[in-house]
Amino acid sequence: MSNRKTPPQPSRRGFLLAGGALALAGWLGGAPGALAAAGAAKPAAAKLPKDVEPFYGPHQGGILTPQQQNSYFAAFDVADTAKREDLIALLKAWTDAAARLTHGQPARALSGQSDKAPLDSGEAVGLSPARLTLTFGFGPSLFSKNGVDRFGLAARRPEALVDLPKFNGDQLVPERSGGDLSVQACADDPQVAFHAVRQLAALADGIASVRWAQTGFASGAPGGGTPRNLMGFKDGTNNPSTKDPALMNQFIWVGDEGGWMKGGSYVVVRRIRIALEHWDKTELGFQQEVVGRYKDSGAPLGQRHEFEPMKLNAVDKDGNPVIPETAHSRVASAQENDGARILRRAYSYNDGANFTAERWPPWHQGIEYDAGLFFIAYQRDPRTGFIRINKKLASQDMMNQYTTHVASAIFACPPGARPGGYIGEALFAAL
Amino acid sequence: MSNRKTPPQPSRRGFLLAGGALALAGWLGGAPGALAAAGAAKPAAAKLPKDVEPFYGPHQGGILTPQQQNSYFAAFDVADTAKREDLIALLKAWTDAAARLTHGQPARALSGQSDKAPLDSGEAVGLSPARLTLTFGFGPSLFSKNGVDRFGLAARRPEALVDLPKFNGDQLVPERSGGDLSVQACADDPQVAFHAVRQLAALADGIASVRWAQTGFASGAPGGGTPRNLMGFKDGTNNPSTKDPALMNQFIWVGDEGGWMKGGSYVVVRRIRIALEHWDKTELGFQQEVVGRYKDSGAPLGQRHEFEPMKLNAVDKDGNPVIPETAHSRVASAQENDGARILRRAYSYNDGANFTAERWPPWHQGIEYDAGLFFIAYQRDPRTGFIRINKKLASQDMMNQYTTHVASAIFACPPGARPGGYIGEALFAAL
Repeated sequence: MSNRKTPPQPSRRGFLLAGGALALAGWLGGAPGALAAAGAAKPAAAKLPKDVEPFYGPHQGGILTPQQQNSYFAAFDVADTAKREDLIALLKAWTDAAARLTHGQPARALSGQSDKAPLDSGEAVGLSPARLTLTFGFGPSLFSKNGVDRFGLAARRPEALVDLPKFNGDQLVPERSGGDLSVQACADDPQVAFHAVRQLAALADGIASVRWAQTGFASGAPGGGTPRNLMGFKDGTNNPSTKDPALMNQFIWVGDEGGWMKGGSYVVVRRIRIALEHWDKTELGFQQEVVGRYKDSGAPLGQRHEFEPMKLNAVDKDGNPVIPETAHSRVASAQENDGARILRRAYSYNDGANFTAERWPPWHQGIEYDAGLFFIAYQRDPRTGFIRINKKLASQDMMNQYTTHVASAIFACPPGARPGGYIGEALFAAL
Repeated sequence: MSNRKTPPQPSRRGFLLAGGALALAGWLGGAPGALAAAGAAKPAAAKLPKDVEPFYGPHQGGILTPQQQNSYFAAFDVADTAKREDLIALLKAWTDAAARLTHGQPARALSGQSDKAPLDSGEAVGLSPARLTLTFGFGPSLFSKNGVDRFGLAARRPEALVDLPKFNGDQLVPERSGGDLSVQACADDPQVAFHAVRQLAALADGIASVRWAQTGFASGAPGGGTPRNLMGFKDGTNNPSTKDPALMNQFIWVGDEGGWMKGGSYVVVRRIRIALEHWDKTELGFQQEVVGRYKDSGAPLGQRHEFEPMKLNAVDKDGNPVIPETAHSRVASAQENDGARILRRAYSYNDGANFTAERWPPWHQGIEYDAGLFFIAYQRDPRTGFIRINKKLASQDMMNQYTTHVASAIFACPPGARPGGYIGEALFAAL
């Protein structure tokens, strides 16, 4: 996160004591067995502890992985170098570190570090691997920025990696949007997720630095089930099933059309502030009209169970649609978007309270919750996925009077790495 | 969080559908048995589920309660009323709601709400009570503000509830500091903690509004033990044992000297930003000098085990102190502060990344982690507790070159409530 090429290393040997070496020997030793075993065996065959998610494989983790409770999403700018080799070196270092971190290991082997900065910041020592996944992506600006082909990659920019259009109602903060590289860390422990990104950021020193970062959480019921977002409604009911490979191949994974992106996916993230104070003063019946579902059960209006299909043609005795024309779940539905489907994997965010001016009546400005939804969605092609759906939502969704999109980014998440390879290898292979 | 006396209630009956009533009947029913049983029995004798912490009792929860994983700390200003009765009504409503919320119930009974704003925002439906505790406090400004005795309470302001002095190095943001009332919500689920404060804020509408809020987390090792903070060191090793009632009476609970505060405690909170990028580039040996402990074990320098006492007089073969004169744990120790002890119950905070100018060399400005320690400490008397210790730390602690106190507050947390009573009852009893 620094522009310094040669960061000053505090070197105060005078403070080093005999006792220090004693502790160093045991510091962050870890248990190398699990990682070595996982690296050697085929990912599918390796027997991983239940709190470890596989890292190597045809697809990156953190996309179909059952959602973890916490996330730390960071965008990086490759601001400190113009060399393609540096970028490749970073991706190799990140891949190696990610494989270690997801297995509960420190990011780097820690031998012979007695007189240097620690190679791991240490706050995850003793914690579970917590099902950590690390998912990497490439932003449009990595391929070309202000017309400059920065790393000789412009010709390899995927067609599907478009710049997102300006949507109706967008109020995007540029400093919290975009980015050359993305790292999505998800884990069942917030400290494990942040720890991982922090090590990756340290590894990037002199090459890339953090542009923005966002923490998130998703609280599931103890018995499982669809988590509720901060609006109090279940969020994700209508997701395509991650257990249906045909559906995933159709809607989530890039196919032959993608070249080096085959087996990857595109992620769109949106920081969506929710006017929770306003929402909390809205009567339940109207909340349900806005969502198009019952708050308690999550069932579509007019149905009884969460996973029953929406009956978009149903009308009440007066001939009005049971699910209003402008209900969020109707406007977002595949039926109303030429069959478009995306895989939402959103987290709530909660950054305390800040001064805010509401944009919809009842107008109010003052200290309000700085909280809402950190929307994350994966898809095979954003043009027929998020962009198609959100164009419609941005202009028709009743929910817009409670929500404001304040940051946005899109990244191409390449396929997974094989042991010995690195994330994004196919992008650079033919250059 | 609004200054509106009569908030507009969206009332769009035209949208209400027959299906709505169906779901309303089951919405947030909960299981009233647990709460009724707990309210009727003596707190000590009540058999509570293991994910429920008792609410009623001689002391408030959230002080000696084994630390939960997540916190949401909010300060409120009583900006919307000048009437003492309103303040008392709020405290009664908060007490009743807190008793319900800590038992996993909605904040209010939900009968007959069919055409109004929901009485609970709903995002905790289906979640565990998650050991929620709610701890209330009164800030100095509640007693008098700018010389005005706002609620006729000035004469009852405890002597110990002093305004914190300006400490060396303080860089406090006023908007994130102070407050008339405080609510500390701690739970093993971030959504449960925020949900509770959100309901309390809704109950305060027209009386008090949120001034600032801060989320926090503490990740403990699966097998228990002292959690590590974002510096990677164990934090809290030298706390007085919460299992020693004599120690708690001596250092944490207010005694006969406190009048209406007897059985209560004073809390000091400090938002302490940590220059993590700088810290991560500091060699391990010097990190350990700064803390005065080994990073791996948490043992004092020169010792082998975490809970061994610090040997402050030990010197190495050159005659230099084994634990440096300016090591954090030495400067903060009871031995160096006339025996002063406080109960730290801090959480890490992580608000992403923001533009920051570092205040110590190596100077750097740019996007840096907006993360650190949300320090929370309880004590019988801040004058002989936090203030005494922090005066010394602020001027001598080597750690100051990595940390900046950016927000601060102090609150008098009254004793616990009895069933039928309310938090702060003794303050108002004799008026």
